[in-house]
Amino acid sequence: MSAPLPAEFALIARHFRQLAGPGSRDLQDDAAVLAPPPGRELVLTCDAMVAGVHFLADDPPDLVGRKLLRVNLSDLAAKGAVPLGYLITVSTPRDTPDAWYAGFADGLRQDQLAYGITLLGGDTTSTPGPISLSLTAIGHVAPGQAPQRAGAAAGDGIWVTGTIGDGALGLAVARGRLADPSGHLLARYRLPQPRIGLAIGGIASAGMDVSDGLVQDLGHICRASHLAADIDATAVPLSEPARAAGPDWLVACLTGGDDYELLLAIPPAQESALRRAAQAAGVAVARIGAFRPGAPEVAVHGDDGRNLSIAKGGWSHF
Amino acid sequence: MSAPLPAEFALIARHFRQLAGPGSRDLQDDAAVLAPPPGRELVLTCDAMVAGVHFLADDPPDLVGRKLLRVNLSDLAAKGAVPLGYLITVSTPRDTPDAWYAGFADGLRQDQLAYGITLLGGDTTSTPGPISLSLTAIGHVAPGQAPQRAGAAAGDGIWVTGTIGDGALGLAVARGRLADPSGHLLARYRLPQPRIGLAIGGIASAGMDVSDGLVQDLGHICRASHLAADIDATAVPLSEPARAAGPDWLVACLTGGDDYELLLAIPPAQESALRRAAQAAGVAVARIGAFRPGAPEVAVHGDDGRNLSIAKGGWSHF
Repeated sequence: MSAPLPAEFALIARHFRQLAGPGSRDLQDDAAVLAPPPGRELVLTCDAMVAGVHFLADDPPDLVGRKLLRVNLSDLAAKGAVPLGYLITVSTPRDTPDAWYAGFADGLRQDQLAYGITLLGGDTTSTPGPISLSLTAIGHVAPGQAPQRAGAAAGDGIWVTGTIGDGALGLAVARGRLADPSGHLLARYRLPQPRIGLAIGGIASAGMDVSDGLVQDLGHICRASHLAADIDATAVPLSEPARAAGPDWLVACLTGGDDYELLLAIPPAQESALRRAAQAAGVAVARIGAFRPGAPEVAVHGDDGRNLSIAKGGWSHF
Repeated sequence: MSAPLPAEFALIARHFRQLAGPGSRDLQDDAAVLAPPPGRELVLTCDAMVAGVHFLADDPPDLVGRKLLRVNLSDLAAKGAVPLGYLITVSTPRDTPDAWYAGFADGLRQDQLAYGITLLGGDTTSTPGPISLSLTAIGHVAPGQAPQRAGAAAGDGIWVTGTIGDGALGLAVARGRLADPSGHLLARYRLPQPRIGLAIGGIASAGMDVSDGLVQDLGHICRASHLAADIDATAVPLSEPARAAGPDWLVACLTGGDDYELLLAIPPAQESALRRAAQAAGVAVARIGAFRPGAPEVAVHGDDGRNLSIAKGGWSHF
């Protein structure tokens, strides 16, 4: 027989081959093959996104692609890693229009350029369910310099990048529960800004990105580091639109997900190094509290000095 | 607030933490961090599996986990790679019973032991659709030794490992269309045997695994290498149960998917090296044809010397 190009491979050629970089073998092989940067450690992370759970079925497909890439880049940023490449799986209903793939790939293409990363490999399949996506991102870091969740010490300051809560409020905007005259909140919800380029290696004693809510995520560092944490709610940086939403939304800001800012433990002796690194990267950083000895807990102090009562620290899928 | 362990993280702790190996940070971090083996190239591959497409919703979950891992290990085997680790994403309906996760993780555990690989990281999410899984596997290989699909030369022999067609016939058994008194065909469909350990690096000029059907997959090598291929249908190794199914099933064997055997281009000067490597790995290998100059096509010669007519070379998802 002659060897026709089945539709699955034509789809890959049409939309995804343009994204392929060194080591990808043009997506025409079983696997990517690449030489890791000598003398560096690898950083690997993956996330799944499902229509109806992580994004809305009628979200613009370019934004879906960009968000999928960026949530993973945010995990690399939390380890101080330089992005190297990524692999994706794309499971779509059979009636998905070609324009969806074109838009999705175009979003990936835009962010590949922005973050200096290329596609290494992937898999496309059909599904009888909603669009289901996964992405594995790979980066590299100097040996021993990737901060762990378990590395915080009592007395370390608790720092965050950027502003907290815009993602949660943006979701409220998308659901019609909050006004957003400037469009800032919705934009922040739809398109995370991973803090790639903030050189926290050797500076942060612990680090992670805020994806499931500040309080819950800080709880992870507390548990992993066997420490308690105090944060000052008034020190948590809020964007102007988040402030404008008013105090009723403060708990949503502290517990909602989708911030994709970095949450860092910084020893006092490293504070000036952090400020220099932040300035070099053009990223705002703010100290919001400190770790102390004690059973893992996160105490949130309000503007009257009393603790805020927070029933649920963040988002869980189950 | 105190920092409770949300259900999602409890699920990970209960079922998946036991699988975590070096570099995984016990699945309690945003990313895995590991030093790549010095002086080796990385080999990376990923596959998605969706209930109702790649497996049946009531398939035993341990077999689902093992198949997910093994289809990816098969891609590493096709590049002659030594497995290093893997990441998974698991998207499940909210009513998925705990026993499903326990069985799924136990299947992964069994095969981790069998193949010397550990879990590096992952993501669990809910889905309103069917169970959707993805796995990214990472291996390593000596620099420049991973065979490409594009590396075959005219005159190279076409070789396969093991037997071809059992997966396709096993699917027919699962659908009640074929008898399987020994259970061999169904077992082969349910549980691929990735040819990890067959040291093809430096021996094969091209290689891939047979996952979408021998004829279609050979067409990929032809297109990538700009060659035509002749295969002798009578030389294609069939298992005893596949032979017993009779000649009506031969085309299904040559075009059905799920073999997970290796399809290799072997220069004549490397044939004895391949035989030695195969003997060392305990894997049967057979020469089924050769590449020749010409436009990409796969000619399948039957036992009367005439070409078999094959309408569709293999499986496409779209």
